[in-house]
Amino acid sequence: MSLTESLNTHRLALCQALDEEDGERLDALLPELRSADIGEILEAILEEEADPPRALALLGRLRLERRASVLGYLPGDAQLVLAEALSDERLLAILEEMSSDERADLFNLLGEDRRQRLLRRMARREREELKRLASYEEGTAGSIMTADYVAIPSGMTVSQAMMRVRQTAPDAETVYQLYIVDGQGRLAGTLSLRQLMVAPPGEAIDELMIRDVIHVPVGEAQEEVARIVARYDLLALPVVDADTRLVGIVTHDDAMDVVESEATEDIHKGMSIGALEDGVSRVPLWSLYRKRVTWLVLLVFANLFSGAGIAYFEETIAAQVALVFFLPLLIGSGGNAGAQAATLMVRGMATGDVGIKDWGKLLGRELLVAGSLGLTMALAVAPIGVMRGGEAVALVVAMSMVIIVLFGSLLGMCLPFLLDRLGWDPATASAPLVTTLIDASGVLIYFGIATAVLSVA
Amino acid sequence: MSLTESLNTHRLALCQALDEEDGERLDALLPELRSADIGEILEAILEEEADPPRALALLGRLRLERRASVLGYLPGDAQLVLAEALSDERLLAILEEMSSDERADLFNLLGEDRRQRLLRRMARREREELKRLASYEEGTAGSIMTADYVAIPSGMTVSQAMMRVRQTAPDAETVYQLYIVDGQGRLAGTLSLRQLMVAPPGEAIDELMIRDVIHVPVGEAQEEVARIVARYDLLALPVVDADTRLVGIVTHDDAMDVVESEATEDIHKGMSIGALEDGVSRVPLWSLYRKRVTWLVLLVFANLFSGAGIAYFEETIAAQVALVFFLPLLIGSGGNAGAQAATLMVRGMATGDVGIKDWGKLLGRELLVAGSLGLTMALAVAPIGVMRGGEAVALVVAMSMVIIVLFGSLLGMCLPFLLDRLGWDPATASAPLVTTLIDASGVLIYFGIATAVLSVA
Repeated sequence: MSLTESLNTHRLALCQALDEEDGERLDALLPELRSADIGEILEAILEEEADPPRALALLGRLRLERRASVLGYLPGDAQLVLAEALSDERLLAILEEMSSDERADLFNLLGEDRRQRLLRRMARREREELKRLASYEEGTAGSIMTADYVAIPSGMTVSQAMMRVRQTAPDAETVYQLYIVDGQGRLAGTLSLRQLMVAPPGEAIDELMIRDVIHVPVGEAQEEVARIVARYDLLALPVVDADTRLVGIVTHDDAMDVVESEATEDIHKGMSIGALEDGVSRVPLWSLYRKRVTWLVLLVFANLFSGAGIAYFEETIAAQVALVFFLPLLIGSGGNAGAQAATLMVRGMATGDVGIKDWGKLLGRELLVAGSLGLTMALAVAPIGVMRGGEAVALVVAMSMVIIVLFGSLLGMCLPFLLDRLGWDPATASAPLVTTLIDASGVLIYFGIATAVLSVA
Repeated sequence: MSLTESLNTHRLALCQALDEEDGERLDALLPELRSADIGEILEAILEEEADPPRALALLGRLRLERRASVLGYLPGDAQLVLAEALSDERLLAILEEMSSDERADLFNLLGEDRRQRLLRRMARREREELKRLASYEEGTAGSIMTADYVAIPSGMTVSQAMMRVRQTAPDAETVYQLYIVDGQGRLAGTLSLRQLMVAPPGEAIDELMIRDVIHVPVGEAQEEVARIVARYDLLALPVVDADTRLVGIVTHDDAMDVVESEATEDIHKGMSIGALEDGVSRVPLWSLYRKRVTWLVLLVFANLFSGAGIAYFEETIAAQVALVFFLPLLIGSGGNAGAQAATLMVRGMATGDVGIKDWGKLLGRELLVAGSLGLTMALAVAPIGVMRGGEAVALVVAMSMVIIVLFGSLLGMCLPFLLDRLGWDPATASAPLVTTLIDASGVLIYFGIATAVLSVA
């Protein structure tokens, strides 16, 4: 049985037991399911029903520890619905069991009143840590780091450090990378558990540790954090404050989530859609509208230039109506080739594969590729030109195709670099923007060539 | 000094030392640099020079172990250039030090002759393992897994297992997740090193281990592998053969690379660009041309329908030439809105956020959002309609805008589901394809409405 099959079987059985309110069966099934999967089932239940009683019944069947980890897998809106249905006391118990980064995220979803009530019931140390973690700006290293790491005081021996690891093991998010801090809490070095395990017990940690630790400041952008984790194949990346004091770590799984969500954001940006705060099936409609409408309306006005271009060449069109037949084809092809070129650059820049220094080399490459593409497409369209309007029209259409595709591709390729140079996000060079710019230029190129060639002919 | 700054300083110093052939300085600098960074410098050197002598000189300065890990960070083409410049003996020494997955990847780049020569000089066990790992199809779990994992025979005690971990530590890719196998090598359970460390030394592993291990077959698609690693926050995912024998593990860092490269592939597909085998600045021009040209040419022919639509309404256009002015704007807007809707669905399906079961709900949402978008854009364009062609034209343009945007968005939204249903990749619903389809429909809708309204008026 494959993973997906066994998951589906379990899921069905669980839903059935829930429907029949068969408590015994639920208790037998739940330990067989993983937190991520229970989370998904909870999410589905919450989507189906406005009120969360069935979801709460399921949650209540879980051990407290499990309840916290399942909650951590839910998207924000589902977390909030459940949190609002729980008493302060029960929510507090769950919060205490959550990892520190998930706790801060959930806390930030609650209303101001509730937050104050919960804070008042916490121990001082917990309160301070939560307030600190909840205060970092969204999208920074601080907002995705956890405070549950293993810090070893400088000066310990290997066996002392090992003892510390064993003590911290139940609470830490990872025990496999240890961070050595000095008396002021500053990051002094790092050591993997693997290195610690094979070292002589009496040796000093300070002799063994790697002093040149890769780390980031707490305000570092999360996409840069993810890039560093990926580049150096890290299990976790330590985060420090302005005085290089260790304040948290970002673990590999959180970095992976960032890579995934940044990719989604980039894909949406490529179609001029602003960053959504949640998945497309859950984000509020009003928000979806706002994130899509801005560029759509701007581009309506940009498209007026294409219309103006057509109006300007009204006489040429009137003299040779067959020309209009090829207009969508020519500007469409230019737009497609240009959007391809822009997308290749924008993604290359996002992954670090392409830098501003590569511009010249890439321009030369694009010239060759786009030239060949234009020629190929001109050959494809020329026979149709002959059929519909004779040889003169075929010549105009073929020439226009080569020039529009070449111009469009070069424009699409250069725009991301230009935007980057001006301090804008290169991803602003979206397919809709590039296509619209090329449409307007394509009209001018096509009818310009037509006017020149056909008046000569 | 930030991470990037310190990197740049080191890089400059290293390049200078290379230029001056200052061996002593090189030996002082190299240990301060990380393998990933040396890899990047090597790559830059190889791109600048056709011949690799300077890169080889740098590589030669590294300890053998370092040489292997640096080589592992290079892209395929750079690996091949260096491998071809090395003698069999030196290449063999490096191969032996590489992790088993990187070894298999490099091996697969070499020519058949060289592979046979190298295999003949290997020990039997090594040879078998390499041949096995090199034989898995690209893009499967087998092609990205490593054979360097810690397997613990069923029946051991905690202290025996711990001993085994210490012995395997130098060679294994991760020692933090242990896999328990039975006498036939079948995957029987798993245990984290953390659990092992806090367990009583005399306890039997079989009592402690988790029996329900998440695992995948060796032929599983790599994007599914990455999705499972991300979903369950795994350090590593075990891979089994048809008899559920453990044959390898995919580690979190390799899964992260898959997420990144799959995102790039999806972004390119969104613009009808086929999967590139390397970064856009390195992929051969011929390949770049081929991956872009297919759909561009297909869409040239699809665009003929738009032209045919225009030709069909020639009389309407002749009667009211002002209509052509609004054509690019209307079909452009429909195309943009439709491409947005398609992109939202395709990405949602790729991340697992959207499934075929959500179709009805999403259709309702899109109806509301696209309707509002169409109305907004109609309001934006109506005054221009009045100015250029009077109230009748404004009415036609505004009505067309609402209908084209609504139709385009619904088409864009439904197409990925339809393709998925037909067993195609939903990502085939690329922006260029969706835009082209909407262009043709937009022409018909616009001039159809114009003919109806203007003949009545």
